[in-house]
Amino acid sequence: MKKTVRAFQATLVLVFFAAVSGMAGILQAAAQEPLPSWNDTNARSRIINFVKQTVTEGGEGFVAPEDRIAVFDNDGTLWTEQPYYIQLGFMLDRVKKLAPQHPEWKTKEPFKSILNDDLKGIARGGEKGIVDLGMSTHAGMTTDQFNKIVSDWFAAAKHPKTGRPYTEMTYLPMRELLDYLRSNSFKTYIVSGGGIEFMRPVTEKLYGIPPEQVVGSTITTEYAIVGDVPVLRRLPKIDFIDDGPGKPAGINKFIGRKPIFVAGNSDGDYEMMRWTTAAKGPGFAMLVHHTDGDREYAYDRQSVFGKLDKALNESERRNWLVVDMKKDWKKVFAFEQ
Amino acid sequence: MKKTVRAFQATLVLVFFAAVSGMAGILQAAAQEPLPSWNDTNARSRIINFVKQTVTEGGEGFVAPEDRIAVFDNDGTLWTEQPYYIQLGFMLDRVKKLAPQHPEWKTKEPFKSILNDDLKGIARGGEKGIVDLGMSTHAGMTTDQFNKIVSDWFAAAKHPKTGRPYTEMTYLPMRELLDYLRSNSFKTYIVSGGGIEFMRPVTEKLYGIPPEQVVGSTITTEYAIVGDVPVLRRLPKIDFIDDGPGKPAGINKFIGRKPIFVAGNSDGDYEMMRWTTAAKGPGFAMLVHHTDGDREYAYDRQSVFGKLDKALNESERRNWLVVDMKKDWKKVFAFEQ
Repeated sequence: MKKTVRAFQATLVLVFFAAVSGMAGILQAAAQEPLPSWNDTNARSRIINFVKQTVTEGGEGFVAPEDRIAVFDNDGTLWTEQPYYIQLGFMLDRVKKLAPQHPEWKTKEPFKSILNDDLKGIARGGEKGIVDLGMSTHAGMTTDQFNKIVSDWFAAAKHPKTGRPYTEMTYLPMRELLDYLRSNSFKTYIVSGGGIEFMRPVTEKLYGIPPEQVVGSTITTEYAIVGDVPVLRRLPKIDFIDDGPGKPAGINKFIGRKPIFVAGNSDGDYEMMRWTTAAKGPGFAMLVHHTDGDREYAYDRQSVFGKLDKALNESERRNWLVVDMKKDWKKVFAFEQ
Repeated sequence: MKKTVRAFQATLVLVFFAAVSGMAGILQAAAQEPLPSWNDTNARSRIINFVKQTVTEGGEGFVAPEDRIAVFDNDGTLWTEQPYYIQLGFMLDRVKKLAPQHPEWKTKEPFKSILNDDLKGIARGGEKGIVDLGMSTHAGMTTDQFNKIVSDWFAAAKHPKTGRPYTEMTYLPMRELLDYLRSNSFKTYIVSGGGIEFMRPVTEKLYGIPPEQVVGSTITTEYAIVGDVPVLRRLPKIDFIDDGPGKPAGINKFIGRKPIFVAGNSDGDYEMMRWTTAAKGPGFAMLVHHTDGDREYAYDRQSVFGKLDKALNESERRNWLVVDMKKDWKKVFAFEQ
């Protein structure tokens, strides 16, 4: 009897600690098949085989938990980037909202085109136009103010085609992949060309990725005292572009370790895929190929947003997995029937 | 009897998971009094009281685990910065090692002074001399090569006063503080003016802080292909100075959350201490005051390295804890008898 009581007490104590440490969630995850929204194709098997090898102690592909770093591009890899980047949608809305305070925008590009809903006119402004646009909408306030502007925008803004909140435009199979990697002790990061402070307010809710695991493009901030309160002011000055060759540099700067798993969907991810898979030891790279014009969009080599050409050409010889959204995914978005 | 068996089985299962998830370590830590190398003074009580409040659910000072971010300066806060920064020691040794390949250094400052062991001559070169020195010793190689150079140096280099490896020159009470915070679900970061890639090879071993939780000054890196292998080359160009007003900017950039606990020891930490403790909600700031000329060094307002003046003046009115190394610490270094 005493033994029963003691065992029961021990059980209680351990149930408490197991609950505290979130073991309940891990037990639950283990009970379920991984990647349920993926079809039973080669893509799913390759991912699962790689993960199984990294966690098999004593095996050739074993990787210590602290080195299980997985990085994900965001636009077109975790959420949709068509008909234009979600962050561009934010800029367009922001210009319209701020226009009454900027009468000069009526005659100045790219603002004039935006106010006239002329997307082609914006494109004509080229890179300089886009940078001006970014600086006008992303700088001049404190970091706390910008965080609130972005959060408020996400709470209300809708995707132009589906009419769904942008926060619902994430790919369900990719969110499952993030969960699956984390349940195998991978640390998951976003490495995106998008603005780091545009993504951070929503990544935890959307992907289970906390702000400190978001790497992206940055603008310079400046410490200032406003009425005896220290703030960080966002300056109209680009600090770092986390795209193309900037991605491996960004990973090295922010994370300081080489990932062993990388997912992208465009030529902007090419260099980080090369860098990750060239390292000694295990490395896995995958491309999300947008092949599903019905459920999402079909595009690659000719697209303005998310152009995929060089990386696709080299995928076979570099043994990079190309995920065919149409064939490999049961569902694209969680809201599909 | 059946109940006993079942309870026993449940216990076994949970013991297993508890062990897997490292609960054993937490149970062990809880059994031991925190901060054993701290004297039983006000400093120790204030730290413990703050931590207890942050973990007390329902209490006014409660902070959700994901927001328990603690940041630590490195030089003079976690390890010694006298008679000069450890990274400067690295530079001096590096110049001597590379000198045979650079005959021009014999007549060029600050190299000439270094080769003549003339520390004052180096100082005469001013900031430009130090930047030249940094670029000559920290750039021109790949990130992997630099990592190896730094690791090899730490394996052999000795502190000029104690003759101990630099890796033993860490403050035992501060390492205990890091452990104590982590055992209360704080995430611990280094936020240092030192080079990020100079610290990362050793922070896990020295402080239990992984590379991705090290924020520091950076130089620009460039992606390049060398014989079909992608590498990152370190360029002789400063990217970011993580010191003074750069520290809150660095925290915002790399971590994306405001810390609730900050430790520093010099005026270079002033702005991040202001920024952290001005936030709404709980916030704790402490200064390590170097008062122990016997066991370490005694310095503050006049010191070339780790000057502490303004932050010390304002500590009382801002309610920042000033830790008196001599009075508050039983031991400074682990190697003391």
